[in-house]
Amino acid sequence: MNAYEALDAHYQKINDLRHIGAITGWDESAMMPAGGGAARSRAMATLNVLVHDLTVDPQISDWLVACENLELSSMQTANVTVIQREHRQAACLTSDFVRAQTEAVMASEQQWRISRAENDWATIQPHLERVVGLAQEEAAMRADAGGLGLYDAMLELYEPGVTASQLDTLFEPLKTSLPLLTDEIIAHQAKTPGMPLGDHFEVAAQRELGLSVMKTLGFDFNHGRLDTSHHPFCGGVPEDVRLTTRYSETDFLQSLFGVIHETGHAMYEQGRPKDWLTQPVSQALSMGTHESQSLLMEMQAGRSPAFMTFIAPKMRAAFGRAESDPAWSVDNLYRQVTTVRRDFIRVDADEVTYPLHVILRYELEKALIDGSLTVADLPEAWHQKMTDYFGLSTAGNYKNGVMQDVHWPAGLIGYFPTYTLGALMAAQLFEAAKTRQPETLQQIETGDFSGLLSWLREHVHNRGSAVSVDQLMTDATGSPLTTDAFLTHLHRRYLG
Amino acid sequence: MNAYEALDAHYQKINDLRHIGAITGWDESAMMPAGGGAARSRAMATLNVLVHDLTVDPQISDWLVACENLELSSMQTANVTVIQREHRQAACLTSDFVRAQTEAVMASEQQWRISRAENDWATIQPHLERVVGLAQEEAAMRADAGGLGLYDAMLELYEPGVTASQLDTLFEPLKTSLPLLTDEIIAHQAKTPGMPLGDHFEVAAQRELGLSVMKTLGFDFNHGRLDTSHHPFCGGVPEDVRLTTRYSETDFLQSLFGVIHETGHAMYEQGRPKDWLTQPVSQALSMGTHESQSLLMEMQAGRSPAFMTFIAPKMRAAFGRAESDPAWSVDNLYRQVTTVRRDFIRVDADEVTYPLHVILRYELEKALIDGSLTVADLPEAWHQKMTDYFGLSTAGNYKNGVMQDVHWPAGLIGYFPTYTLGALMAAQLFEAAKTRQPETLQQIETGDFSGLLSWLREHVHNRGSAVSVDQLMTDATGSPLTTDAFLTHLHRRYLG
Repeated sequence: MNAYEALDAHYQKINDLRHIGAITGWDESAMMPAGGGAARSRAMATLNVLVHDLTVDPQISDWLVACENLELSSMQTANVTVIQREHRQAACLTSDFVRAQTEAVMASEQQWRISRAENDWATIQPHLERVVGLAQEEAAMRADAGGLGLYDAMLELYEPGVTASQLDTLFEPLKTSLPLLTDEIIAHQAKTPGMPLGDHFEVAAQRELGLSVMKTLGFDFNHGRLDTSHHPFCGGVPEDVRLTTRYSETDFLQSLFGVIHETGHAMYEQGRPKDWLTQPVSQALSMGTHESQSLLMEMQAGRSPAFMTFIAPKMRAAFGRAESDPAWSVDNLYRQVTTVRRDFIRVDADEVTYPLHVILRYELEKALIDGSLTVADLPEAWHQKMTDYFGLSTAGNYKNGVMQDVHWPAGLIGYFPTYTLGALMAAQLFEAAKTRQPETLQQIETGDFSGLLSWLREHVHNRGSAVSVDQLMTDATGSPLTTDAFLTHLHRRYLG
Repeated sequence: MNAYEALDAHYQKINDLRHIGAITGWDESAMMPAGGGAARSRAMATLNVLVHDLTVDPQISDWLVACENLELSSMQTANVTVIQREHRQAACLTSDFVRAQTEAVMASEQQWRISRAENDWATIQPHLERVVGLAQEEAAMRADAGGLGLYDAMLELYEPGVTASQLDTLFEPLKTSLPLLTDEIIAHQAKTPGMPLGDHFEVAAQRELGLSVMKTLGFDFNHGRLDTSHHPFCGGVPEDVRLTTRYSETDFLQSLFGVIHETGHAMYEQGRPKDWLTQPVSQALSMGTHESQSLLMEMQAGRSPAFMTFIAPKMRAAFGRAESDPAWSVDNLYRQVTTVRRDFIRVDADEVTYPLHVILRYELEKALIDGSLTVADLPEAWHQKMTDYFGLSTAGNYKNGVMQDVHWPAGLIGYFPTYTLGALMAAQLFEAAKTRQPETLQQIETGDFSGLLSWLREHVHNRGSAVSVDQLMTDATGSPLTTDAFLTHLHRRYLG
């Protein structure tokens, strides 16, 4: 067994244990009764320690060095590159640090659930101070090991190869134009207000509709399933993708577009390079790329007039509405899924205002990491930016302000920007798909996603982590990522 | 950390990984889409190897030796005893042997599914020869390591402390009396034939009825759940017991009593000693003891006139039948759940004929292990015993004869007797419970199982593996296990 083969075998083992962890993690969210929680946490912690120990195994460094003298295929070389990065990211933290951080984050997350419900900043602040302090330490260790800036070292965990300076460039035109664009769109939409759809939708009918849409999009039910959980997510493994949704009896669109979103994630996983699934090179390229696949399905394709034309009759059939009911016309349904409003909550935001929520967080978390903003000053800074970007005050409204997201209490710093990178990529990829395959929208209008999915398989899914985001975007669309396609899309959809 | 504490920590880790394995195993049977199978098998194999490596860790021997010089509590001492046995059982087989056996068994099980469906003995015979050959080797290694007889060494895996000679003594009166008793009962029941219940029962209603019965019996839904799978089983972990059933639209009694059976297993798991759940001493005492808990609920309590009085109105309500319908009277429903017949299939057998199915297998597998019977001669030997004990010929009928059970193709030799040990224990324990708590049957008639469950918790569940079966039975019932209570029960229920 040469060094590459040894690496390959080692990562197969890691992949097997991650498989077990992914399924058990899904179970915890979708199946486990509450009483099973304590024992499960302990069991998962033991598994995670085992996996962590394998990823920092000192043999890996030796194998990586020895690989330099081997003739490897391009995929093998790419695999080695991903392993190098993963190994550096895992090995630069001491076990003691990982344990301390895990404990701090668990305590902080648990407190966050309580504090948020009670709009109580004072009880979460000390936890957040501890977690942010540890994140600063983490960033310093990662920056040192990777030769990166502090924030860049955190960002690299989710978006390898992208730096804060690139983000600044990408986000600038959004920050400048979106507030005005939002004004214009809201004024425009006020001229033709939507008609309400009713307020009761059977969960069983919602589930059937969701399953049928998943099938339409191209989800492979031989390699995955749909269940319910409190927080919708896409988990499992590429061979068996587990996605979840939640149902509101008063709003079926929330669940349906949630399912479409998660199906986008799921099909990315199902489309990872088949012959490399046990190896890191088969993994999704980045969190932004992952989000591009969910947003392409949800925002670009799903909320298009073409798809609404296809799905409107199925919506009416699912909930027993007449074609003659004007509220259930294609036009009104389309209006319902493209309504823009300024609001407090990121996860409920439309695609026009969403990037401003992200930019606000990005700016604040950069300042937290470099120490120019303290946790104590965070609520005021949040309020200030919400006022500037949205004209909304969050003074005293922690629950719907600085405390609305789990990310910071969970120690996730550097993650937020990937949501907007995903939105930009989705727009640029969808534009390219439509240009290269001009029949795309007509196909979607008949519920045929096979052409679009094939294009995504070839240009995104099958590439795994074997290229950079820049390369992937250039190969697929002819240029690296810019904001052009996204802004053009917004103008066309909302003011066209 | 002294040697005992080191052992304790080591087995906590093993327990954590077994937890993960149990949940993932449940998922495979109850949730996983078929396409996930290949990757899952690989992942589970990796986890199993990890767990096996931990159970044969050479440090364990050192810790066990060092424990001899420590002052331990009685539970700690019992824990050490169980660990000693488990470690010996794991360590006496080489890794090469385990791998060879695992592969042979997997191939054999897969072939069995095909061969059984096609009633084709010729294709399974070579697999069975290989598996039985390996079982003989296994028995020899186990016998050597444990100072036990060949068959006793296999039996010890499922029923520690019980020997073939004890089984011979227990089974003799059953073998002698049951064929005649069966004749008598069948003749007796022929005088008052049952009325059929109908042939369509909504699955949703069956599920609701099953859930409500689980609640009645005392299943804790905060620590477990009910799902469906092709083969019903009780899996998961004590903190989160996963039980499954399957539904037939034409026969609701099969699923309902299946649920009651699995709930008996499940409540044993839920009742294991709370403070010792991470340690081997908390495990169920033996497979026979486990089966005693399922059969006590299903056969002793569940099919009693008292329970049928309680459940009959709920059955009628579940399926919309009138109280005046004579087929749905308590009497006829009771008759339906206590019908005795001679038949080919063990898993469908009633409690009267079941032990004969077991004794037949026990006699044959003993002969297979000691080499006095070859696999080639097995179908003829099966046919002979079926003719002797049941008056039924299985000549050429492999499917419903020698090929009906997965146990031998799966390499499980020494397991069958535990079914009948469980039936005997169930009868003796239930008799003792009724004697000690004379209100038991009246309580069951009102759907109150709390008294019975408390008694089982104290005398069986909470004891874990800290005692021998003999001791447990003596403490709970006043005498070691005999066939008296079981035979008395049969006479009383079926001829009384």
